[in-house]
Amino acid sequence: MKPDVLISEVGPRDGLQSVKATMATADKFRWIDALVAAGLREIEVGSFVPPRLMPQMADAAEVVRHALTHPGVTVLALVPNARGAEAALKAGVHKLTIPVSASHAHSLANVRQTPDEMVEVVREIVRLRDALAPGVGIEAGISTAFGCTLQGEVPEDEVIRLSVACVAAGADESGLSDTTGMANPAQVRRLFKRLQAELGQHAGSAHMHNTRGLGLANCLAAWDVGVRTFDGSLGGLGGCPHAPGASGNVVTEDLVFMFEAMGVTTGVNLEKLMAAREPLRAGLPGEPLYGMTPEAGLPLGWKQGV
Amino acid sequence: MKPDVLISEVGPRDGLQSVKATMATADKFRWIDALVAAGLREIEVGSFVPPRLMPQMADAAEVVRHALTHPGVTVLALVPNARGAEAALKAGVHKLTIPVSASHAHSLANVRQTPDEMVEVVREIVRLRDALAPGVGIEAGISTAFGCTLQGEVPEDEVIRLSVACVAAGADESGLSDTTGMANPAQVRRLFKRLQAELGQHAGSAHMHNTRGLGLANCLAAWDVGVRTFDGSLGGLGGCPHAPGASGNVVTEDLVFMFEAMGVTTGVNLEKLMAAREPLRAGLPGEPLYGMTPEAGLPLGWKQGV
Repeated sequence: MKPDVLISEVGPRDGLQSVKATMATADKFRWIDALVAAGLREIEVGSFVPPRLMPQMADAAEVVRHALTHPGVTVLALVPNARGAEAALKAGVHKLTIPVSASHAHSLANVRQTPDEMVEVVREIVRLRDALAPGVGIEAGISTAFGCTLQGEVPEDEVIRLSVACVAAGADESGLSDTTGMANPAQVRRLFKRLQAELGQHAGSAHMHNTRGLGLANCLAAWDVGVRTFDGSLGGLGGCPHAPGASGNVVTEDLVFMFEAMGVTTGVNLEKLMAAREPLRAGLPGEPLYGMTPEAGLPLGWKQGV
Repeated sequence: MKPDVLISEVGPRDGLQSVKATMATADKFRWIDALVAAGLREIEVGSFVPPRLMPQMADAAEVVRHALTHPGVTVLALVPNARGAEAALKAGVHKLTIPVSASHAHSLANVRQTPDEMVEVVREIVRLRDALAPGVGIEAGISTAFGCTLQGEVPEDEVIRLSVACVAAGADESGLSDTTGMANPAQVRRLFKRLQAELGQHAGSAHMHNTRGLGLANCLAAWDVGVRTFDGSLGGLGGCPHAPGASGNVVTEDLVFMFEAMGVTTGVNLEKLMAAREPLRAGLPGEPLYGMTPEAGLPLGWKQGV
């Protein structure tokens, strides 16, 4: 039976690229194996970027090939350009995610391209996908969709315009990312409702951060309006270095706990998920891991179907 | 103009009674003054219990009298029995809160009385109030309303039955407390809807804990179904000693940030609220304070009316 929501684990990509240390390839394998054992069915395993810019991701192709040995798991990679996309497609990924920033300032700082230039990148990657591997999915991840640390407010119209433009350029879906942890539940409901009204089944996932503690409240808000795919990062890996103790990505363990406690099935076994912190800890010694549920433990009488 | 929600600060009672150190009376005054300066209009300033059991609260009457010097602030105290209520009424509180546990096991462990015996205590305190200070409000705080660390599940019917019994015994309102951090948003909506259906305007506040990270999501869920009074504790004071880093009470700063970011007015100025951490820190040196918003800072472009 299909779970009610799909939890997409982004730790091996979003988490690892935010920490200074580089995890050994064999440790990444063990970690991914533990994530799969816990029941995760979609994992963003790396990004295809120049190794000199991001040595943590130099083994992305190898990690993709390892993840592909797990049947039933959708293997995702982030690609910022056609060159990365080609490498990812050759490695055999099931799905590409392309970051398209809704903030002009952030887009220039991040990829040295304007948002509209990134829409053209999406179009180029779609052509490449159609030629090399037509079965592969493409998601545009609209970053800074809820606010930007460089320019402040990001107009909602601009977020929707870009989301629509990416799907028009051939992306299968556009999802919304709270890159900067500035989203609030009212805004999340408003934007996802508009996204769904514009894109229907092409409306994508919610990628929330917990910078100001609102990560789960924002996921709840997105769930309320019909979002069914949520990104999380095991141990909240990917914390913002400017906010000690403030985890960046929503903690997968807490996200799964919230949904399962509500009776919303995730397909993920919480005890096994918490056990997956061990290979992560072993592969990144000294790196702080977050998570309230792992710290508090599961409540007395906790029962879970999976 | 009346704010959309009332934030009830419980730190000086719930927070202080959970830490080992005893804050000096003068430090409590400074802290309460800072809370008032931030715009908080309801503060639970202490509990009237025997000083040998809880030396942190030995100065409750003095603290009440100080808090009463601030016009427009509702001064609350917790009282577990008629003796405490009499002392609180004599000190001049505006409102009494009486803890009534929905878990039989927790009730016996906490106050050595069954839940139904506590309903009789409510009735006794109501009589006392009617005789001594008819204008004073009485709230029953139904604790372990969402689960219990001793007995596990707490039947929802029992929570509702007790809430109704307390109002029938003369309490002005019954609120629900997630004492153990076991609540989830679906349960919060279900229980508060039932509470409102049974009690109408006598349905009280939401007192949420953040033990497993769901504190704000649960407050959002309560807001969605019409709850308009929320307890919070500055700096999340009152953390569970068994879950390091896991704050107990919902952090007032994050709660105010969530609502204000949503456009729901609280009457509380966030910058001044964060400044109120200083007297708290000074009065309890070495005690860890929590809060994601204070750690991350306010977002670029943050504007607030108050």
